[in-house]
Amino acid sequence: MDQHQLIDAPWRGARQVDVALERYFSLARSQAGKHGKRFERLWDVIERNTTGGKRFRPRMVMVAYTSLGGTDLEAVAQLAAAYEMLHTALIIHDDVIDRDFVRRGQANISGSYRDIATTAGMPLPSAEHRGLSAAVIAGDLAISAAYRLVDRTGAADDVRLRLRDLLDDAITASAAGELADVDFSLLAEQPTVDEVVEMERQKTAVYSFEAPLQSGAVLAGAFDETIEQLGAFGRNIGIAYQIVDDILGVFGREDVTGKSTLGDLREGKRTVITARASTHDLWPPVSALFGKPDLDDEEAAQIRNVLVDSGSRSFAESLAADFTNRAWEHLASDAIPVALRTELQPVVRRVLERVR
Amino acid sequence: MDQHQLIDAPWRGARQVDVALERYFSLARSQAGKHGKRFERLWDVIERNTTGGKRFRPRMVMVAYTSLGGTDLEAVAQLAAAYEMLHTALIIHDDVIDRDFVRRGQANISGSYRDIATTAGMPLPSAEHRGLSAAVIAGDLAISAAYRLVDRTGAADDVRLRLRDLLDDAITASAAGELADVDFSLLAEQPTVDEVVEMERQKTAVYSFEAPLQSGAVLAGAFDETIEQLGAFGRNIGIAYQIVDDILGVFGREDVTGKSTLGDLREGKRTVITARASTHDLWPPVSALFGKPDLDDEEAAQIRNVLVDSGSRSFAESLAADFTNRAWEHLASDAIPVALRTELQPVVRRVLERVR
Repeated sequence: MDQHQLIDAPWRGARQVDVALERYFSLARSQAGKHGKRFERLWDVIERNTTGGKRFRPRMVMVAYTSLGGTDLEAVAQLAAAYEMLHTALIIHDDVIDRDFVRRGQANISGSYRDIATTAGMPLPSAEHRGLSAAVIAGDLAISAAYRLVDRTGAADDVRLRLRDLLDDAITASAAGELADVDFSLLAEQPTVDEVVEMERQKTAVYSFEAPLQSGAVLAGAFDETIEQLGAFGRNIGIAYQIVDDILGVFGREDVTGKSTLGDLREGKRTVITARASTHDLWPPVSALFGKPDLDDEEAAQIRNVLVDSGSRSFAESLAADFTNRAWEHLASDAIPVALRTELQPVVRRVLERVR
Repeated sequence: MDQHQLIDAPWRGARQVDVALERYFSLARSQAGKHGKRFERLWDVIERNTTGGKRFRPRMVMVAYTSLGGTDLEAVAQLAAAYEMLHTALIIHDDVIDRDFVRRGQANISGSYRDIATTAGMPLPSAEHRGLSAAVIAGDLAISAAYRLVDRTGAADDVRLRLRDLLDDAITASAAGELADVDFSLLAEQPTVDEVVEMERQKTAVYSFEAPLQSGAVLAGAFDETIEQLGAFGRNIGIAYQIVDDILGVFGREDVTGKSTLGDLREGKRTVITARASTHDLWPPVSALFGKPDLDDEEAAQIRNVLVDSGSRSFAESLAADFTNRAWEHLASDAIPVALRTELQPVVRRVLERVR
């Protein structure tokens, strides 16, 4: 999921999050340095891969915490940084699984390590193996970092344990979603719409929305009912967001999203749109094109036509609207203080705007 | 590293460790079950991959703890289980990096998931991709489990933080060692003996010996000087153990070690023996055979002759003896109580016996 343009305004605690991340990287680098220069460099590459991001998950932690009366920005920044680090870990291992060497036009960890090796004269297959190996290791370190950062929040024991449980649950859900996603991509038959929604909830909504929001609320000492409603809000808006992302992946404007609309079709990415379309009579003629690695613009247009004519695009748009409305309802709960609602409303609006 | 035959006698707390692991797997499975049957099965495969192991690292935790006066076997069992889980995680990701589908004659995680897929009719490349992906995910879950288990030890905050630091350090060291090992295997030139020793310290000695021993001591409330001497003992005996393992990998008796003595030579595994041999005049004629995937018995014998005639085998044996002696010296320190020394002496003796 890309959080491009989801919320743009400056936000409270952004600086503290950057400081927390910088400090952690500096600590990790000095710890790594004891094991030699080569290893220290791995942290440089990991850090470079986290800078320039939107810090969306830290922002969710911060919004929940500050709107619910939390005032210790240094403490919550550690928690927020933990979710950024988890995001980093999941992206790194997702790229390993997909054997991707590039993310958003730039060399990722695998790509960086591959390129250093080829420059030094290593043949490509060995260099790629080195790149993927470095990325497996880097992802492990980033998971470890997420746990360490939650601990650095310095919360009382009962609060710390709840924060740890939320992190554990997020890692578990993401793992389940990743495994389902792998299986979907390998099976000849398409998953059902419900299966895709469940996968997207697990793979993205929990760790990007639900867990960060709930963690911020827990650290702020919010009531259980608030934490619950906030979780349900995050879950639903997260699913809506991912469905919209899937729509934009095929129908978006490249100049706005920064992503080619051929990628998902060439990859044969399973989404609610394609899951829905695959059960329609119009699908069989284009099913062979779906997932064709060298799909051209004309063939892509054929698939898009079927996605539109079968009603699958509008189905996905309605589904995203449904989940957004459910999110909205939870946000309207009496358990959500006005200040928090006000902060989160732009998030909801942006999801709706993107799809229109 | 295989801990075959390192220590055989029954040990105190073994049952508690098994119970702690079983409970954790049961907890993890029920948490996973919320995300569907498919995902729950991943924990079955992880658990199957940990049973039947020697529980060597848990045993190091237990020996240190009980010999230093610790009495809460249920508490320390969680800590011991954490190191077994870390071992599981590192093995799983090591196999991903090596693209191995088998470990000790049995399908590992990748192999299990590949086989399920091929049985269901999936073509082999897709099935292998699925297997490796499942293993990336499984390793992540096992790292997370190690952190969770340390937390379940229920120690006071200052003790818990020291246990966490030891786990963090072990993960960092293992990552550094793994990265160095990957680089060694890909570079045309051989590393130096010192570089191999350092890699083996990082990759194996820290997480298998040093950190488990120190963790057990910390939980038992041992003096700092005891913890330090114990760490130095673990570091040195761990390096000695790994050097012996490398010698047995090339010169061992298959009927004793259970491992083919062709594997390491076919793989071109960098060890202190080959690092030493590669600087000798006898090496160039066999260097092309080293790492030959289909190396036959006669060719292997040629390499072994060079390793012996160049004095590399006896060099490695002396080096292992050196590290064992250093370990012995730390064990003889006044800071190590007699009870602990008595428990650890068989470990030292076995390392020496194996190499003779």
